[in-house]
Amino acid sequence: MKFPATGPLLTDLYQFTMMQAYLDAGMVEEAVFEFFVRKLPKGRNFLIAAGLDQVLQYLDSLVFSSSEIAWFERAGGFNRRFLDYLAELRFAGEVHAMPEGTVFFPNEPILRITAPMPVAQLVESRIINLLNFETLIASKAARCVLAAPGKFLVDFGLRRAHGAEAGLLASRASYLAGFSGTSAVLAGAELDIPVFGTMAHSFVQAHTLERDSFAHFAAARPNNVTFLIDTYDTEAAAQKVVDLAPELLGQGVTIRSVRLDSGDLAAHAFKVRRILDAGGLAQVGIFCSGGLDEYQLQDLLSVGAPIEGFGVGTSLDVSADAPCLDAAYKLQEYAGQARRKRSEGKATWPGRKQVYRRYAADGTMSGDALTLESDPQDGTPLIVPVMRNRQRLAQESLAQLRSRAAAELARLPQGRRRLEDCATPYPMEVSQGLRELTEALDRQPH
Amino acid sequence: MKFPATGPLLTDLYQFTMMQAYLDAGMVEEAVFEFFVRKLPKGRNFLIAAGLDQVLQYLDSLVFSSSEIAWFERAGGFNRRFLDYLAELRFAGEVHAMPEGTVFFPNEPILRITAPMPVAQLVESRIINLLNFETLIASKAARCVLAAPGKFLVDFGLRRAHGAEAGLLASRASYLAGFSGTSAVLAGAELDIPVFGTMAHSFVQAHTLERDSFAHFAAARPNNVTFLIDTYDTEAAAQKVVDLAPELLGQGVTIRSVRLDSGDLAAHAFKVRRILDAGGLAQVGIFCSGGLDEYQLQDLLSVGAPIEGFGVGTSLDVSADAPCLDAAYKLQEYAGQARRKRSEGKATWPGRKQVYRRYAADGTMSGDALTLESDPQDGTPLIVPVMRNRQRLAQESLAQLRSRAAAELARLPQGRRRLEDCATPYPMEVSQGLRELTEALDRQPH
Repeated sequence: MKFPATGPLLTDLYQFTMMQAYLDAGMVEEAVFEFFVRKLPKGRNFLIAAGLDQVLQYLDSLVFSSSEIAWFERAGGFNRRFLDYLAELRFAGEVHAMPEGTVFFPNEPILRITAPMPVAQLVESRIINLLNFETLIASKAARCVLAAPGKFLVDFGLRRAHGAEAGLLASRASYLAGFSGTSAVLAGAELDIPVFGTMAHSFVQAHTLERDSFAHFAAARPNNVTFLIDTYDTEAAAQKVVDLAPELLGQGVTIRSVRLDSGDLAAHAFKVRRILDAGGLAQVGIFCSGGLDEYQLQDLLSVGAPIEGFGVGTSLDVSADAPCLDAAYKLQEYAGQARRKRSEGKATWPGRKQVYRRYAADGTMSGDALTLESDPQDGTPLIVPVMRNRQRLAQESLAQLRSRAAAELARLPQGRRRLEDCATPYPMEVSQGLRELTEALDRQPH
Repeated sequence: MKFPATGPLLTDLYQFTMMQAYLDAGMVEEAVFEFFVRKLPKGRNFLIAAGLDQVLQYLDSLVFSSSEIAWFERAGGFNRRFLDYLAELRFAGEVHAMPEGTVFFPNEPILRITAPMPVAQLVESRIINLLNFETLIASKAARCVLAAPGKFLVDFGLRRAHGAEAGLLASRASYLAGFSGTSAVLAGAELDIPVFGTMAHSFVQAHTLERDSFAHFAAARPNNVTFLIDTYDTEAAAQKVVDLAPELLGQGVTIRSVRLDSGDLAAHAFKVRRILDAGGLAQVGIFCSGGLDEYQLQDLLSVGAPIEGFGVGTSLDVSADAPCLDAAYKLQEYAGQARRKRSEGKATWPGRKQVYRRYAADGTMSGDALTLESDPQDGTPLIVPVMRNRQRLAQESLAQLRSRAAAELARLPQGRRRLEDCATPYPMEVSQGLRELTEALDRQPH
């Protein structure tokens, strides 16, 4: 196994079984599927759409190689019509979506796929896999940004992320949502995301004297050095930095900050700040890490702890308090007929939909309308075409997505900017036409 | 960006900064790092070691290409000595580990890396990334296996897993821990894991009549068909299966099961069982899915619900109740000198360690001893050499790892087999020699 492996076989077996059944039954007409989230997890007042770029890359590159097709021949039960269809398959459908960085709410589609049924079905698993994860992380990161406005926030979560792709895409999603950068070098190399790093406890421990570890570290890369000072005694180490500073500054070293990674961070930060200030290092900042989440960021800042930046790791990269979304990709229309899932507790709104957003006089979001695409409502439509005839439309840079996310966060209603769960749902109006279509479908035989 | 991307840049920036500092300071002697978990998360009475095979593949393939080295030149601050070292770097160190499938407990190393300091440091991030995730999933899967002994369990989590690699490795880790297979085709193609699948609601919805969807589906792949029967009315659909069965059986279709995915699964299972039995389909099983976890499996079986198998998805693939482990990779020795981290709440046991396991008369695990490798204790040593001189030692098949995990689960003490948290920690004795070494290190200056 060469890993991490991906490609067109990264999907659920039933997609292929259903594809063969559709082909055998001649059901290859146009299908419309939409991706949406059924409800907000506890601890989330809004979500940020993310992952579309990866979805469009996946769709654009969807090709089955001969060795992949050979797997189906070995597996058995797949016929020649199916195998030939796979060999010719390319994604040539239409994609509509909310642009990445857009704030959205439950039952609002953020992606719509329009393609022949076998293709639209096939792509379900990977589309959910990508949109679910990046949206999850962007939404968690946005909460950190709201809890620590103006602070320097770095994604430190690669090591606890769920595998390679999660580490890389968490860097992307958190940067999109307002983080300053990541510790993951690959995210710098592949996605041009700013990369930051300090030093590890092991570096200090490998030296007999902590002071020597600081001197060696500063000499190696003298610009914007951050010393990790909690390996033994945090305040004693802060004093060592002060004592060492004249020598280092004489060698052209710039000391950016000291990092605290354990213990009572607020208490240490206050003490260390006094030591640094008394030692003439007022310009040296304090950077904190160590199991932090948005609540701890808020708590540390609410007591006025003199901290300039935070490394947020595990809780961000696994979205620890809400590690999954109730996300779905559901059939909305087949061969021109609207469709609807009616299973207990999982019913969906049918048809090709659009979301219109309304704003209050102060510019904040005041409510959305969910409607059929063919039935416009007041407000700004949020879903736009993004791929057609194998061409991506209006491709945006990560910087642009990041700007959009910042603008969206600024327009959140005040109550939704808080970490605490809102008592009331975000206002969402379902259009008359959509309600009528739903009722009509429920009267049909099955 | 071609994604999912991985490779030697999938690590934290500070690893490279520290490497350069080590090289500049001439600190390239042998270092020993160990990976362990500090404490069990709530809801876990034991852990199952997993991910070693991926770690060894990573170490074996660790090479920096010229384009990767060019990134450091562009980034700036890296010197020629460092760039040359990267260009020549291969992992030629030693690896010791607990074999995959072994049950382990907090503070017990499951991996030890012995290599020149810059190399041993570099590999930290990806080693934690892999071992943390696969161990997390294997441990969660083992709880499902214990909650539903003898049942057919399938990993359905790909779509909610955190990216591509997480989906693939969750299939591996859950199969290793005793699942019967996965829905992820790539896991079949790449890892020879049995792949299973049913049908989706969209397939039913795409047809005007539910009955036609069953007929089309059965015709497409007639062996071991599973019908999804909860799209509209579960019991009515069960009756449709009964009504359709004679025709299908006449066409050579074998109906394996019906799948329930929503509502009160126990209540539906009892009713559907009666309908199938009354219709002469006693041999058709009931398979359940829909947001299940180990607690729901236990509850469904404790009321005697007639269910043969379960698809477990999101809760498994993200280990939803414990989406991360407090896992660490810490320096234990440098240049022949034992080392120890002493930060508040994060102190570690120093030196190269071994774990000895003791068993009660009935064969169940009765307690472990943590000791220095040089100081054997009673019991069976769990850590063995697995890589040396660029050669893997004693490579095992996934089937062998799966057998080990099953044997290990069978030897768990009774209280630890239950889903409820054990009131007492698993007995772990720390050897006298290890305690003395720790105290001696704490008396050293720093």
